[in-house]
Amino acid sequence: VVVVEHAVRFEEVDAAGLVFFAHLGAWAHEAMVRFFDQLDGGYVRLITERRIGLPAVKLEAEFHAPLRYGDVVAIETSVAKVGNKSAVFVYRMKRQDGELAAELRHTVVTTDLEAVRSCPMPADVRAALEAHRSTGHG
Amino acid sequence: VVVVEHAVRFEEVDAAGLVFFAHLGAWAHEAMVRFFDQLDGGYVRLITERRIGLPAVKLEAEFHAPLRYGDVVAIETSVAKVGNKSAVFVYRMKRQDGELAAELRHTVVTTDLEAVRSCPMPADVRAALEAHRSTGHG
Amino acid sequence: VVVVEHAVRFEEVDAAGLVFFAHLGAWAHEAMVRFFDQLDGGYVRLITERRIGLPAVKLEAEFHAPLRYGDVVAIETSVAKVGNKSAVFVYRMKRQDGELAAELRHTVVTTDLEAVRSCPMPADVRAALEAHRSTGHG
Amino acid sequence: VVVVEHAVRFEEVDAAGLVFFAHLGAWAHEAMVRFFDQLDGGYVRLITERRIGLPAVKLEAEFHAPLRYGDVVAIETSVAKVGNKSAVFVYRMKRQDGELAAELRHTVVTTDLEAVRSCPMPADVRAALEAHRSTGHG
Repeated sequence: VVVVEHAVRFEEVDAAGLVFFAHLGAWAHEAMVRFFDQLDGGYVRLITERRIGLPAVKLEAEFHAPLRYGDVVAIETSVAKVGNKSAVFVYRMKRQDGELAAELRHTVVTTDLEAVRSCPMPADVRAALEAHRSTGHG
Repeated sequence: VVVVEHAVRFEEVDAAGLVFFAHLGAWAHEAMVRFFDQLDGGYVRLITERRIGLPAVKLEAEFHAPLRYGDVVAIETSVAKVGNKSAVFVYRMKRQDGELAAELRHTVVTTDLEAVRSCPMPADVRAALEAHRSTGHG
Repeated sequence: VVVVEHAVRFEEVDAAGLVFFAHLGAWAHEAMVRFFDQLDGGYVRLITERRIGLPAVKLEAEFHAPLRYGDVVAIETSVAKVGNKSAVFVYRMKRQDGELAAELRHTVVTTDLEAVRSCPMPADVRAALEAHRSTGHG
Repeated sequence: VVVVEHAVRFEEVDAAGLVFFAHLGAWAHEAMVRFFDQLDGGYVRLITERRIGLPAVKLEAEFHAPLRYGDVVAIETSVAKVGNKSAVFVYRMKRQDGELAAELRHTVVTTDLEAVRSCPMPADVRAALEAHRSTGHG
C-alpha cells in the first residue's frame, strides 16, 4: 500500500458546499501517478518519452462520507489485479478523522499512445504493480 | 431519455492527448442538471433555495472508446431506478460517429443540504425521474 | 461583437460560495473558441489539423461583481488589436441583471504548434479578427 | 518571499499539448493559500470559521515560456502592496531550468463572506502580508 495525502483545494467544492464527486477520479489518478514514482523517470517519462499510457477502462466509486474544504484525505493505493495488459487499482480515501470517505476501483489498460491501442505491459510497470498487489480479495 | 450534447473542451484533454476520464463524471452531472430543467426553477433552485442536493453515493463508469479534442458527445440520460431517497441515472455517451464512448451509472441520494443528511425525495423530483424511467433492465 | 452565454456550473464555485476567479480565464478561452466558429473547421481544425494555436502571452482581468451558482453570464467578445502575429481580445462578462461582472483582455500569439514558436497569422484568422475589431479605444 | 512547488498535473495540459493558461490562476491562488499557512488555522480557518475571504478584484498575468507535462514550477510569492482592505500578491513562476515561465499580479480584497462586502483587514493577515512585503518596485 502506497499512501499519499490530498488536502481539499479551495476550488474543489461545489455549489452544495461539498467536494464535487468527479474530482475524486482525478485524486485517484494523481495517487496512481505517485504510485509510479518507483519507475525510473516515473509516470512522466512513461507518458512523454516511452509513450505508454494507462487510460481507464472502468471506474467504480463508492462515496461514503462527505468531504468539505479543510478536509485532508489519506489515499491508500493498492493493486487488486494484474493482467496481461491491465491492472486494477484500489484507492481507499480516509478523512483526517479516520472515516472512510470513498473507495474507488480503477481499471487501466497499458496503451501505446502513438497507436492508441493496448500493448504489452512493460516489465518495470508489472514489477511495481506486483510489489504492491494486495493479498486479500481486493 | 433526455439527450444533451457536449463538445470536448480544449482543456479537457490530458498529457496523453485523450479526454481525461474523470471529466466524464462532470459531464454526467451536467446532464443530470439539464435533466432537471423540467423542475420549476431547475436544479439551481433545488440547490440554492430549496436546499436539497443529490450527492453521488456511487458511480460506475465504463470507458469503451477514447475521446479527443474535436469530438462531440451525445449524452443520453435515463433513469434506471427510483427509490425512497435515491435514484440511479444511466448516461450513454455516444461519439459523433455513433460509437459508444462511455456508459455511466450514477446513484444519487436526496439530501438536506443544511443537515447534510438524506431526506425524502420531493414529489416533483420523483415525478421527473419516473417520467424518464427506462422500462428495460437499466 | 460576438456574444455567447455561460451558465455558472455547479462545480465552478469555491469554498467561499463564489465563482472561482481562475475559471473566468477558461470562459474567456471558450468565448474565443466560439468566436472562431466563423473559420472553416473552426478552432478545432486550427489546432488539430492546421496545427496553429493561440496561446496567451498576457491576461488582464478585472472582477467587478461576484458570481454565484445560478448566474448566467453573457460574454461579449471583441477584438481590440490585431498585430502581425498577435491579437488582443476583450471579453465583457455581464450578469443576467445587466451588471458587468468582469472584463478581461487576452493577448494571444499565433503559434506553430509543432515548433512551439510564433508564426505568421493565417489570412482567415486575420480576416475574422478584423471583422470584429472594435472601433473604440478597446 | 515564500516558495512553493507545483508539478504540472497530467490533466493540466490542453489540446495544444501545453499547460492551459487559466490553470496558472489556480496555481497562484494555491500559492496564496500556502502563504497563509503562517496564520493560526491558515486559510482554511479564515474561510470556514472566521468567514473572511480574499476574492480577486484584479489579475494581471504575463506568460513568458510554455509549460508542458513533466515541468515543475517554483512559485515565488511576494507582496507588492498592502492597503486598507486590499493587497497585491506577485507570483514569479520559474521552470526547473530556471526560465521564468510566468509572472502574475493578483489583487485581493478582504471580504466578509456573509455580507459579501469588503471588510477591514484582520491584524494577523496584515502582519503576514507586511512580513513578506517586497522592498523593491514590485
